[in-house]
Amino acid sequence: MSERAADLENLVIREARLDDLPVLISIFAADTLGGHGDTTSDEAYDDYRDAFEAIKASASNTLYVAELDDMIVGTFQTTYIRTLTGRGGASLTIEAVQTHPDWRGRGIGSKMIEAAIDEAKIEGCRLVQLMSNAAREDAHRFYERLGFRQSHHGFKMKLHGA
Amino acid sequence: MSERAADLENLVIREARLDDLPVLISIFAADTLGGHGDTTSDEAYDDYRDAFEAIKASASNTLYVAELDDMIVGTFQTTYIRTLTGRGGASLTIEAVQTHPDWRGRGIGSKMIEAAIDEAKIEGCRLVQLMSNAAREDAHRFYERLGFRQSHHGFKMKLHGA
Repeated sequence: MSERAADLENLVIREARLDDLPVLISIFAADTLGGHGDTTSDEAYDDYRDAFEAIKASASNTLYVAELDDMIVGTFQTTYIRTLTGRGGASLTIEAVQTHPDWRGRGIGSKMIEAAIDEAKIEGCRLVQLMSNAAREDAHRFYERLGFRQSHHGFKMKLHGA
Repeated sequence: MSERAADLENLVIREARLDDLPVLISIFAADTLGGHGDTTSDEAYDDYRDAFEAIKASASNTLYVAELDDMIVGTFQTTYIRTLTGRGGASLTIEAVQTHPDWRGRGIGSKMIEAAIDEAKIEGCRLVQLMSNAAREDAHRFYERLGFRQSHHGFKMKLHGA
C-alpha cells in the first residue's frame, strides 16, 4: 500500500458541526472555477451560518466533512429526494463536493463519494446523482471510475437580484 | 395569437392532489426513454401513493400538475435545496418534468418551467437547475431557449437491489 493511501486510514467522514464552518467557507472560497462568489469576509459569515442551520434542520439534507487527524480535508452535501418516477423511488443527490486544495490527489474524494453511495444504499435509494461543471474534466473521469454514467446534461440558470 | 397558444389561456399550474395520481402514473409509464420502470399495474399503486404522501409531507418538495379544462396535461416536481456554496444560497431543482403524450408541442412545458422559475424567485433562490437525459436533444434546445445554460454534466448511478 502506498504511503498516500495509508494516510487515509484515519479518515473520518461525519456530519459537519458549526465549528467546522470557517474551514468549510475557506474551501468554497478557494474554488474559483465554480464561481459561486464565496468569500471568507466577515460580513458573509451570517449568511453561511443561516444556511448551515437550515441544512441541519432539514431531514432530507446532510452536510458532511471528511476529517483527517483533526483537519477538515473535504466536504459534500447529500439531499434525499423522493419522486413518483421509478415507481415512487428515492434518489440521493450529491452537491457541493470539495476537497481541500492542500489535500487533492490522495483519494479523499473517492472516500467521500463512496460514503454518499453507502448512505444512498442504507436509505433504499434507487439512484445516486450529481452535476459536475463541464470544465472539470478530471472530475468527470473520477465519477466514471466510481461507477457513475454521464447519461445526462446539467442545466443551470442563475437568478439575479436573488 | 395562434389557436394553439390560445388553448393555454385556461392552463392552471397547481399542486398535485391524490386524485391526480393515476393520470400521473400513466404519464410516467408512457415515458420509455427515461426507462425508470414505471407501470400502471395495480401492484405498483401503493408505491406511488407512498411516494406521493412523502412528497406532500416534505416542506422542500412540491409536486405540480398542469391542468387544462379538467385534464392533467403535464407534471413536474421542485426541490428547494440550501447549500453553503453561493454564500449559503438556495437553489431550486426541477425533477420529473413530463408533458402528457397527447399534449406535446403546445407550449405546456414552457409554462411549467416558467412556473418553477417563478417559484424559485419567490423563494429567493440564486439558481434553478435540472438534469436532462443526454438523448433528449429537443429538450436541451427547449431549456436553452428558456434561459438555461448547459454548463454541467449530469452523472447518475443506478443502485440495484434497492
